[in-house]
Amino acid sequence: MMGVDPGLTRCGIALVESGAGRQVTALDVDVVRTPTDMELAQRLLAVYTAASHWLDTHKPDVVAIERVFAQNQVSTAMGTAQAGGVIALAAGQREIPVRFHTPSEVKAAVTGSGRADKAQVTAMVTRILGMQTKPRPADAADALALAICHCWRGPMAERMMRAQRQAEAAAARHREKIDAARARTSADTARTGVDTARQRRGA
Amino acid sequence: MMGVDPGLTRCGIALVESGAGRQVTALDVDVVRTPTDMELAQRLLAVYTAASHWLDTHKPDVVAIERVFAQNQVSTAMGTAQAGGVIALAAGQREIPVRFHTPSEVKAAVTGSGRADKAQVTAMVTRILGMQTKPRPADAADALALAICHCWRGPMAERMMRAQRQAEAAAARHREKIDAARARTSADTARTGVDTARQRRGA
Repeated sequence: MMGVDPGLTRCGIALVESGAGRQVTALDVDVVRTPTDMELAQRLLAVYTAASHWLDTHKPDVVAIERVFAQNQVSTAMGTAQAGGVIALAAGQREIPVRFHTPSEVKAAVTGSGRADKAQVTAMVTRILGMQTKPRPADAADALALAICHCWRGPMAERMMRAQRQAEAAAARHREKIDAARARTSADTARTGVDTARQRRGA
Repeated sequence: MMGVDPGLTRCGIALVESGAGRQVTALDVDVVRTPTDMELAQRLLAVYTAASHWLDTHKPDVVAIERVFAQNQVSTAMGTAQAGGVIALAAGQREIPVRFHTPSEVKAAVTGSGRADKAQVTAMVTRILGMQTKPRPADAADALALAICHCWRGPMAERMMRAQRQAEAAAARHREKIDAARARTSADTARTGVDTARQRRGA
């Protein structure tokens, strides 16, 4: 499981292995940095290259990326979304599924509260993974939290997604049936109309 | 000159050639579409693949992309930013410079008003390029407008960027000089301080 806290200035990438029950182990964590005075395309290229290298080296089953909202921190939200986008692209090119989790889902999964602060998240991540020292900077802790969140919530989220897709497919089949029935009815009406006209002409 | 109106559902890509003075010619324009029920990573991959194909086929000198603001259309802004991001990445991988223009810069360049509506932009693009029919959909017209905007504003923008970089470099050199002078002064002061202390101890 690869967890990503996307960003251009700092992008946290973590690798966590899921064991029996809720057991999780940190395999690797790093923060990719790009200078703020670098051109956007070059910063995206640096993030994409680093993520591609991680994907090729560790071949994770799933990549979990933090979902960015436009509402939060408007000035950096676009760059953050773009960094997440090129990482999703790198995963898509390798046919590795990509899942998104909101910051509050991640916080709730590791601390029990969707409004926990960064210090709480870092403390819980350190405890859950049994790490000797706190992961630094916060982006590294966030990437680990994302991976833990997906290890724990992922299987449930996958089942829900499958159930939703099945429900959507059933609804689509139902709509098709209704449409077909409606088409038959209107065809009958049209034929009746023709018959009536013929009758009227005395045929 | 390649102009891009980024988007996931519809992404306009246009190729415009700049001639003498303000003469511009449309070489090609297309709209890349991805279905809304496709997974994000796959949609980004489709946009990236199409953009890469355009870049390899046409080898433009510059790629001009519309700058997205988080404030506008919050629901789609993130996807739009990500689509622009993977196209910037594709250009960066080929060492093709990427430039961003705001929607109001583009509108002002082609219609004279930064608050022109879509119909005005389409009408002016059709007239400027001497096209027989209006480019459709609006995303195609926007991509052409972006390319025209960069053809006309680009050289000026490049000169301004170079001037700004030179000014920044000069400011940095100036700061270095000042810092060096300050370091010398404080070193002198420190030495003087030591001498004075020695003198006090009666050395």
